[in-house]
Amino acid sequence: MIIVKVGGGTGINWNFVATDLKQLLVKEPVVLVHGAAAVRDEVAQKLATPTQTITSPSGIPSVYTDQPALDIFLMVYPGLVNKKVVATLQAHHVSAVGLSGVDGALWRAKRKANTLSQQGGKTKLLTDNLTGRVEQVNTELIQLLIANGYLPVIAPPALSFSNEVVNTDSDWAVAIMAAALQVKKVVYLFAAPGLLKDIDEPTSLVKHIEAEKIDDYLPFAQGRMKRKVLGAKKALELGVEVVYWGDGRVENPVTGALRGNGTTISRTTISGSTISGAKTKL
Amino acid sequence: MIIVKVGGGTGINWNFVATDLKQLLVKEPVVLVHGAAAVRDEVAQKLATPTQTITSPSGIPSVYTDQPALDIFLMVYPGLVNKKVVATLQAHHVSAVGLSGVDGALWRAKRKANTLSQQGGKTKLLTDNLTGRVEQVNTELIQLLIANGYLPVIAPPALSFSNEVVNTDSDWAVAIMAAALQVKKVVYLFAAPGLLKDIDEPTSLVKHIEAEKIDDYLPFAQGRMKRKVLGAKKALELGVEVVYWGDGRVENPVTGALRGNGTTISRTTISGSTISGAKTKL
Repeated sequence: MIIVKVGGGTGINWNFVATDLKQLLVKEPVVLVHGAAAVRDEVAQKLATPTQTITSPSGIPSVYTDQPALDIFLMVYPGLVNKKVVATLQAHHVSAVGLSGVDGALWRAKRKANTLSQQGGKTKLLTDNLTGRVEQVNTELIQLLIANGYLPVIAPPALSFSNEVVNTDSDWAVAIMAAALQVKKVVYLFAAPGLLKDIDEPTSLVKHIEAEKIDDYLPFAQGRMKRKVLGAKKALELGVEVVYWGDGRVENPVTGALRGNGTTISRTTISGSTISGAKTKL
Repeated sequence: MIIVKVGGGTGINWNFVATDLKQLLVKEPVVLVHGAAAVRDEVAQKLATPTQTITSPSGIPSVYTDQPALDIFLMVYPGLVNKKVVATLQAHHVSAVGLSGVDGALWRAKRKANTLSQQGGKTKLLTDNLTGRVEQVNTELIQLLIANGYLPVIAPPALSFSNEVVNTDSDWAVAIMAAALQVKKVVYLFAAPGLLKDIDEPTSLVKHIEAEKIDDYLPFAQGRMKRKVLGAKKALELGVEVVYWGDGRVENPVTGALRGNGTTISRTTISGSTISGAKTKL
C-alpha cells in the first residue's frame, strides 16, 4: 500500500494524477490525501474573512482557525475540493470515495487547548484556535473500502477525542496514518520538482536526503514546506522506509516520484534511481 | 432498513435527531439523507451570488444551478452541513460516515440537457443548468457500510452517467434509493408537524393520506414541499409501503413520525396510530 498526499497549492494537474493512479492501482492499493489551501484562501477572501497565518515560537507557520475559519475549511476541504477530486477520479474510472477525518472518526486528534503565536518580539496565547494533532486512525474503515475496490480520498479536518471538529496538519496525519497502516512508501506531490535549495532555481533540486540528516534541510523549506519536512521526518521515525517529494504538475506524477524524479528521503544512501537498497528493516 | 430524509430548512434539531437515531439503530439499520437549502442560500447571499429559483411550466420550483451555484452547493451540502451532521452524530456515539452522491458513484443521475423555466407568460430554455435526476444507486457501498456498523449520511449532488457533478432532487433520489434497497418505510423530517391544510394552522395537520389520492394534496404543499409530495408519490409507486412526514424540531422526531405523529401516506387506510395494517404487498 502507498499513501499519496497531494498538496493544496495551485498548479496541480489532477488529470495527470488520476491517469497515473489508475495505472498504479492495478499493482498496489493507494490511500489518497489532499489539501486545498489555495482554494480555501480564495473563498475566505471572497467571504471577507481572509485566512490568518500564525507562527509558532519555533518558526513553524500554521493557520489560525476560529469558528468562521473552520466553517470555510469545512466548505472547501471535504466539500468543494474533495468532491471535485472524486469526480475527476471517477471520470478516469477510479472508484473514488471521499472522506474527511470526521467520517467514521477516521482521524482522531488531540485538541490543542492553547496555541502560542509569535508576533514580532511578543508571544501571544490563543485559546480559541480549533486545531489538534492526529493521534489515532480508523484503519478498519480504510481497509474495508480498499478491500472492496474503492480508493479512499481523504481530506482534513479531524475529529477531536471529545468530538469537536478541528483543523489539523495533514502532513502529520499522513505520517500517523502510514504507521497505523504499516505503509512503507509515502509520496507527497506539490507544485515544484521536489525540495529546491534555491526556490527560484529548478536545477537546485535535492535528489536525495538521508533521513538522519533531514533537519539540515529545514532552512531550505519555505513557508508551508516546513511542515512537509516535519511530516516526512515523523513518517520515517514511525517506520516509513522512503518518502518521495514529487512534482504534481507533470505527467505520471506519482510513478515518476516513485522512480526518483523528485526528492527521495530514506534511511540509506540510494545509488542511481533505484530505491531497492532502501528497504532497511527498522 | 429505514431511510430517513431530513430537510434542509431552518429549525431542525439535530441533537434530537441524533438521540433518536441512536435508539432506533439498535433495532434497525438506517440510511440518512439530508438537505442544506437554508445554509446554501445564506452562503450564496454572502458570496453575492444569491440562489435563483426557477419554476417549471407545470409549476414545480427548482434551483437554477450554473457552475458558480454548483460550487456553492459543493461547499455546503457535502462540506459544511454534511460534516457538521456527522460530527453531531459522532458526539451521540453513532458511527456516521458522510457521503455525497458523487462518492463511489453512489447516486448516478441522467443529466437534463435542457430545462424549461416559466417566467410570467414566457417559457425560457436554459441549457447551462447542471442538474439531473437520479436513476441508479450504488447499493453495494451502502450495504457494505451498514454491514460494518456505520450509518451512511448522504447529501447531494449526484454524478451524471458521463461523470459530471449535477444538482439533483434528493426527495426523488430517496425514492429511487428506497426501491433499490427494497426499503419499505421512508421518513421525511422538516420544520412542520407534517402536511398542513393551512400552513399557518398546526391543527390543520393531515393525519393520513391514501397513496392513490396523494395528487389531491398537491395544492396544500407550498414551495419546496411540492417536491416532497412528488418524491413520496414516486417512492410509493416503486414499492415503499409507508411514507411518514414528521416534525424535525421535536424530541424523538423519527420514532415519533413512525408512530404516526405527523402525516402518514400509505396504500391502505390506517386505523388509529398503528401502521401494521399497511403491509400490503405490491
